[in-house]
This record gives sequence, C-alpha cells and structure tokens, in this order.
Amino acid sequence: MEIQDKDVKKLLETYKEISLLEKIKATLDWDLNVNMPPKGVHGRAAQSTLLTKLVTEKWLDQAFKESVEQIKTDSLSAEEKAIVRNIRQLGNFYFKVPKEIILEKSEVTTQAFVVWSTAKKNNDFKLFVPHLTKIVDLDRSIADHLGFEKNKYDALLNLYEPGLTTEFVENIFTPLQKELSEYISLVRSTPQFAKEYAPAKVYSSRSQRKLSKYLMHLLHYSHEEGRLDVSAHPFTTTLDRYDVRITTKYFKHDFRSNYSATIHEVGHALYELGVNPDYSFTPLEGGVSLGIHESQSRFWENMVGRSALFSEFLSPAFQSLFSDYSLTSEYLVHSLNQIRPDLIRIEADEVTYNLHIILRYEIERDLINQKIEVQDIPAVWNEKMTKYLLVTPITDSEGCLQDVHWSYGSFGYFPTYSLGNLYAAQFTHTMRKSIDFDSCLRKGELQPVLDWLRKNIHIHGGLYLPHELVQKVTGEKLNPQYFIDYIREKYNSIYNLS
Amino acid sequence: MEIQDKDVKKLLETYKEISLLEKIKATLDWDLNVNMPPKGVHGRAAQSTLLTKLVTEKWLDQAFKESVEQIKTDSLSAEEKAIVRNIRQLGNFYFKVPKEIILEKSEVTTQAFVVWSTAKKNNDFKLFVPHLTKIVDLDRSIADHLGFEKNKYDALLNLYEPGLTTEFVENIFTPLQKELSEYISLVRSTPQFAKEYAPAKVYSSRSQRKLSKYLMHLLHYSHEEGRLDVSAHPFTTTLDRYDVRITTKYFKHDFRSNYSATIHEVGHALYELGVNPDYSFTPLEGGVSLGIHESQSRFWENMVGRSALFSEFLSPAFQSLFSDYSLTSEYLVHSLNQIRPDLIRIEADEVTYNLHIILRYEIERDLINQKIEVQDIPAVWNEKMTKYLLVTPITDSEGCLQDVHWSYGSFGYFPTYSLGNLYAAQFTHTMRKSIDFDSCLRKGELQPVLDWLRKNIHIHGGLYLPHELVQKVTGEKLNPQYFIDYIREKYNSIYNLS
Repeated sequence: MEIQDKDVKKLLETYKEISLLEKIKATLDWDLNVNMPPKGVHGRAAQSTLLTKLVTEKWLDQAFKESVEQIKTDSLSAEEKAIVRNIRQLGNFYFKVPKEIILEKSEVTTQAFVVWSTAKKNNDFKLFVPHLTKIVDLDRSIADHLGFEKNKYDALLNLYEPGLTTEFVENIFTPLQKELSEYISLVRSTPQFAKEYAPAKVYSSRSQRKLSKYLMHLLHYSHEEGRLDVSAHPFTTTLDRYDVRITTKYFKHDFRSNYSATIHEVGHALYELGVNPDYSFTPLEGGVSLGIHESQSRFWENMVGRSALFSEFLSPAFQSLFSDYSLTSEYLVHSLNQIRPDLIRIEADEVTYNLHIILRYEIERDLINQKIEVQDIPAVWNEKMTKYLLVTPITDSEGCLQDVHWSYGSFGYFPTYSLGNLYAAQFTHTMRKSIDFDSCLRKGELQPVLDWLRKNIHIHGGLYLPHELVQKVTGEKLNPQYFIDYIREKYNSIYNLS
Repeated sequence: MEIQDKDVKKLLETYKEISLLEKIKATLDWDLNVNMPPKGVHGRAAQSTLLTKLVTEKWLDQAFKESVEQIKTDSLSAEEKAIVRNIRQLGNFYFKVPKEIILEKSEVTTQAFVVWSTAKKNNDFKLFVPHLTKIVDLDRSIADHLGFEKNKYDALLNLYEPGLTTEFVENIFTPLQKELSEYISLVRSTPQFAKEYAPAKVYSSRSQRKLSKYLMHLLHYSHEEGRLDVSAHPFTTTLDRYDVRITTKYFKHDFRSNYSATIHEVGHALYELGVNPDYSFTPLEGGVSLGIHESQSRFWENMVGRSALFSEFLSPAFQSLFSDYSLTSEYLVHSLNQIRPDLIRIEADEVTYNLHIILRYEIERDLINQKIEVQDIPAVWNEKMTKYLLVTPITDSEGCLQDVHWSYGSFGYFPTYSLGNLYAAQFTHTMRKSIDFDSCLRKGELQPVLDWLRKNIHIHGGLYLPHELVQKVTGEKLNPQYFIDYIREKYNSIYNLS
C-alpha cells in the first residue's frame, strides 16, 4: 500500500501515535492479567488512565478533528478511502459524544465493575441497580449523540460492528431462536442425550500445556510472534503487528476448557497476524470488527477443534499426553459436543450458545429503547431463559449478574458473539468449495485452511466493512441458514437423528 | 508529606505524568527483556520512542519550564525544597541541552549499540571508532551546555550522582587504586591463592530458582510487590512504587552467578520498596542516586551474601537443594570469595572490581577533556589493565569493547559502581554500632538489618543529595578507608594473612 494523498498521510501521522498508545496500553493490560504482583494494581490503573487520557487528547485535537471532517475523498484510492472511513468511524465517538459524558462513563464504569463483582458474589442485584441505571442512562445519551436512523440501539451496535442495524439483527435472530429452541427439544428426546462424557481423571497443567503447544504448532501460530500464558480468563491481545499473545487456563479435572480456549484464542491471534503488514499503524490494521474476529476464533474452536475428523486425528496425542487411553476419538467427539441447555453462557455448547446471546440482545435493545428498565432485568431474564432453554436460574448470580459486560457499559457487544458463529459457518461453506476441508482435518494438515483464511479474510484487515467482506468472500450477505445446516448435519450424526 | 505550596503542587501535576510515563516505559522494557517474541522488537522500539518523545515534550513545555525556573524556594518546607531541587536537577538536561543534540544522541546511540555488538563479536574496534567518536563529541558538547566549574567531566558525573565532582572522585580513586593493587600483589603471594573452588556439578534451573526464592524470603522481598524472572542480564526495575521486579540467570554448571545476582537485585528492589510512599509520583520517589542504589545491592550481595557467617547459615540449604554435600560453609566462603585478577569487569571479585572501574573512569575523564581520543582507547586500556591488574587483554573484545555503556553514551556512569562499594562499607561500619550484624548473619535473621536500612536510608528516597545522606547516616563524608579496612579484615582471614 502506498499512500499518495498528502492529507491522508497527515492523518496517519496522528493515527500512528494513537495506534502506538493503544498497543502500549495492551501491553500494560496483558501484564496486569498475566504477571501483576497484587500490590501493583493501583499504580497500573493510574498508568492506564493516563494513556486513555493521551489517546482522547489526540482524537480531540482540533486540527486533527477538522482534517478528519473536511478531507475530500473523491479522488482517493480504495485503501485511502477505507482509511478515512475507519478514522471517521473511530473518531465519531470522540467527536460527537461530549467529553464530560466520556469521562463520566469512565468513572461510573470503574466503580460499577467493583460493585458488580460484589453483587455477583452476594447474589444482590439490588446493589447493582443504581450503578447499572446510570450506565444505561449514559449509553442512551451516547446513542443520542452518536445519532441513528431507525433504532437508538443501532448507534451502539455500530461501535462494535460497523454498519450493523437492529433490524438486520432482528431478522437473523428471530428465526434462529425458533430453529435452535426446536432443535434442542428434538435432541432432548434422544436416548443419546442422557449419556455423560465428562472426563474424570487428573490432567496436569504440564501435560495440558504440552497439548496447547502442540495445537499452536498444528495451527501454525509461532513463538516468533506470539506467547502462551495463563490468566483468570483466556484472552488474545495485540501488542504489535508481530507480537500477538494468547492466554489460557488449566482445570485439573477437565482438559476441555483449556483445549477449546487455546484453539479459540489461537484463532483470534492468527487473524491479527494475517493482516497485510502494510496496514500497520493505520486504521486498516487488526481485524475488521468484533463479529468477524469471533468468526475466526469460533471457526477454529468449533469447525476444526470440535469436529469428528480432527478428534480422530488428535486422539492418539491426547491418549499419550495424558496417559489416558479412554480418550478415543469417539469419546472425544461426544465429550466435546454435548448439548446441555444450562445457565451459564461461557460454559455453553455451540448449539445453546446463541440462545444466551439472543436473550441478552433482546434485553439490551429494550433497555436502550426504554421499553424496560434496569429493575425489570431479573424477571425478564428468567422468563426468557425458561422459554428459550427450559432452565430457570435460582439466583441472579447465575442469571443476569453472570457477565461483566454491562458493568463496562458495553451495550451492543453481545450480538457480535452470535454473528461470529454465523459468519464462521458461512465462511466454512464457501471454503469447502475450494479446498478439501475434511481431508485437512483428517490429516491434521491445516496449512491449506490457514492459507484460505489468510487470502480471503485476514489479509484485508479493516479494508472492508463487515457486511462487504462477507459479500466479497461468500457472494451473499449474512445468511443464518448455513449455521443451521451446519448444526443439523453435525448433531444429527452425534445424536443419531435423521 | 503534605504539600502546602501552590506552585509546587502545580509542578507535581506535570511531574506525576512524567513519572507515570517513565513507569510505563519501565513495563515495556521489562517485558522486552523477559517475554518478548523475537519479531516484536521493532514495534516495541517504536512504542518506547513515542514514550520518550512524550516525556521530552512534558519537560520542554514552556509553562512548566518557566515555573521550574522561577519558583521561589525561600518559604518552602524541606521536602518542598528537595522536590524543586530534584526537578531542576532532572530538568536541567532538557532545559540546557538543545533538543537537536538530545535527538541526535538518541539516534547515534541507537545505531552505535548495534555496531558495538558487531564490533565486540568480531573483535573489530575500528568499526566502532567513528560511532564512539560521534558519541564522545556529543557528550563533550552536552557537558558544555550543562556547564561545570572546574572539570568538563563534572557535568556528566552529575547526571548520575548529583553533586559529584571529578576532584572528589580523584581524591578517592587514586589512593584506592594504590591500596588495592598492592593488596592483590600480597594475596598473589599466598599459598591459598593457587587453590581453586569452582563448582563442578550440574545445578538445575529448578533448584537454583528454589534457592533464589529462599533468598527472597530471607531478605523479606515479597511476591506481593515483586517478581523473579529470567533475562539475558539480571536487572531490577520499578514498574510502580508497589511493583518492583528483579531478574536473574541460571548457569547450569555454576550456582554462584545466580546466587549473587539474586541477592544483588533484591538489594536494589528493597531500596525502591522502602521509600516513603508519600513520595510516590514526586521526584523524591525511588533511590537518591546510582551510587547509593549500588551501595544497597552491593551491601546485600557482598557484606551479607559473601560473608562467612551467612555462608555458614546457608550451607545446609545449599547442600539439600542441590543434593551436593561438598557445599560446606568453608567451601562456600572460598568459592564465593576467590580473588582473581582477570579481564572481565562483570565477572570480577569484590577486590579487583574497583580497579576495573578506576581504569574506565580515567579513560572517560581524559576522553571528555580531550586528553586522549577514541582511537587511543585500546592502547591506554591495555596499559592500565597490565599496570593495575597484571593481566593484558589479547583482544579488544575482552578489553575495551567488553561493556555496553559507552555505546549508550553513558559517560559518567561507571564511577557510581565503585562509589556503591565504598558507601556500602561505610554504611556497614555505622550499622554495626547499633545492631548485632554478625548475629543476624549467623542466624539468617535479616529483619533488623533491613529495618536499619529502611529507617536510615530507604525511607528518605531522594530527599537528600547523596553526600548529604552519607553525612547524615554516618556522620562524615565518604571515606574509602572503611572499604579498605573491610577488604583487609575479610580477605586476611580467607588468605591467611595477618
């Protein structure tokens, strides 16, 4: 990529500093989660706050803001146009939302996070109510400042998935919910459903780490540009275009959590590491959106990691690493793919998972549009859980208090998780037309798979909007039928359905 | 500490941001040395450069600079006065040295470091000459801009040890060199000198790490506010007032390097962790100077770690950790305290070490004052090595190219290493008057030792100038006789001299 336009070049000078500051913050956050001596947390918070302040100052610099708003895009190249579009998309938040609201949200959410932790621990939703109410009010106001065409919630969706509308999500989620709830009922009626495949031995951290390293090797994620560490919640973070790190967590009595987390996070990392290096320090760097990012992690986690063929390939390695010869390929497939309608999102299987998301989406949409208020959440939550998943939380801790997202004020974020699952199925469908995906899984030779993703998705970074990318890669817009077909084909086999 | 003065409060607002940015940079550097995937180094360099730029901008902010220069100090408290003094001391460099020179030095040294590495590897001093010549020219010019009374080298010494003059160093180093060279000749003539006490078994990293953890425990350095990691060269770094981390390195066939490095770095860390917490984010935070800092690391490394009494206490732990029952206390004492006049500074024992420093000091002093030029260094180096230590380097790689410091342009830094040794001996002499130091070593109960250091040295942070602190703690100015007495008493016993 060569930037010809002087004004774009000028914008990129400021953007590069913003990008570097964000990467520096990523390093601080990685260290916080992986290495931090307990007493250092307060100082680290002060450092992060300063970086956020410096980034905000860069965005709010009057000359920069004016250049962003005034730049003429007619004669620009496609890449230059995308750069301006993305800077506007990112800058929109700083330009349109008053600084006082940004600062207030930062303060309110910092406090709310602590209160949420206590409320979850003590099953005390009431404690959280005043804080969440403030956050919802702020996010409603932020949405008003950002502007929207049809639905106030659109403004927030757009922060995470540019171009996404409530109408579009609704048209996807409504039939999806119906399909999935029906399918789960069907599965419940099979004899196979009652069988348990929970691992029961001890799986040492040492062996689990070896398994993770082997997976990293198979997926071509290299220590030259990455690391594997341990943290309370697994995550991926980009410290530089050539330094993308993942974390995982080892449970002594179950290898599955680490297995899935490692592949999932490697999927995120491979995306970041596959972007055109020319895009570094520009707003085309990194993945295009949260939804597309999640499609990459979920593709590797589910379409690869939970497939029967890859389980078959990996079974000998599992058996030898853990000296556990009950880990046959059949056992692995069943153990990794049990449909279990239950209360907790992050423990959900790939079939019930989207119902957890749809429920959250519906609540968020109605909250932002003032159709419900914060105190209504527990009742609405429990009603929807019962309706969609046939399970009812006894406590709010295992109900509407389970996720951290709302304490951060991340309304609009949840839907991207499901979009990721749907994108992944649609991409896989397209991929199968040009490579022998099954053969790759069977042999554990994943280079052609990675090459396909790199060439079709990763390399483009943020050049296209999410819906443009989906259209370009698959020839059509997002279509949930691919996901439904994928689920039916896979689980019909596992649950002996026709 | 309560700051009353409004102008000082104002200064501290800016200083706090500088302090936070420096801590952020420390985190990036720690990560670079401990965790970095190889391909990430270029991006990390760009991040560090940005932080340096931001710090420079803060110092050069016109309003800040004017406040620093104009602030009235007459009616300030002692702490406020020290704050202003230290800000002036630190700001002096930015205020007086033209920005172009600062930037040029940054560029020149970045390149020179790479050239130095190659030159050292290939024993090619000529390759390094043009780069080092530029650096020396820049440092001469920097000294001119900073200003000095008697000797141009004073200006550079002051950057590392505020208030230090060439004249003062000269009056210390000249007799010290004579004393030490003579003493080494005496030791050479003893039968004991020919004996070797080099460990010959394999000491696993695992066991060496356990030893380090045990030392951390004995020295009251806690994981609550610190970490132990591995890096190519051991170091200590302050990421926050409550997050001070150390690193070490394990050599398979010799436990001594890790043993000494751990205690040395813990010594630095304890100093940082002992400063009055009220001083955080002010220029009173951290240690007072490089020399005083080195006194803390060398005190623990030598006066504690290499003492006969502590070796006696530790011997059972050594024996059991390494399953090596030849590690008797007598063996440890001899093994940790062999006087070996040799070529490499960082491998030198505590007697010959200062001669390595004196040699470097003399060369630096003469370079900065244009009495010698860069191309003269190898000849001068080898002549002095032969005169002071009776050993002559065959190659420049093991001679004048051995240290990295000059490639950074850190002229004026080396003398602080020796000052540290001398301060440590003088502090120990004073400490012995109020606590039973020998009993602490014998029992491995080091709390009274740490308490004494905390109360007399650590707590003050940067409140006093180094020479003021020495006067306050010991009742007199720096006197090298304490070090000479300490060496004679200790090594007379080891080498059976009377």
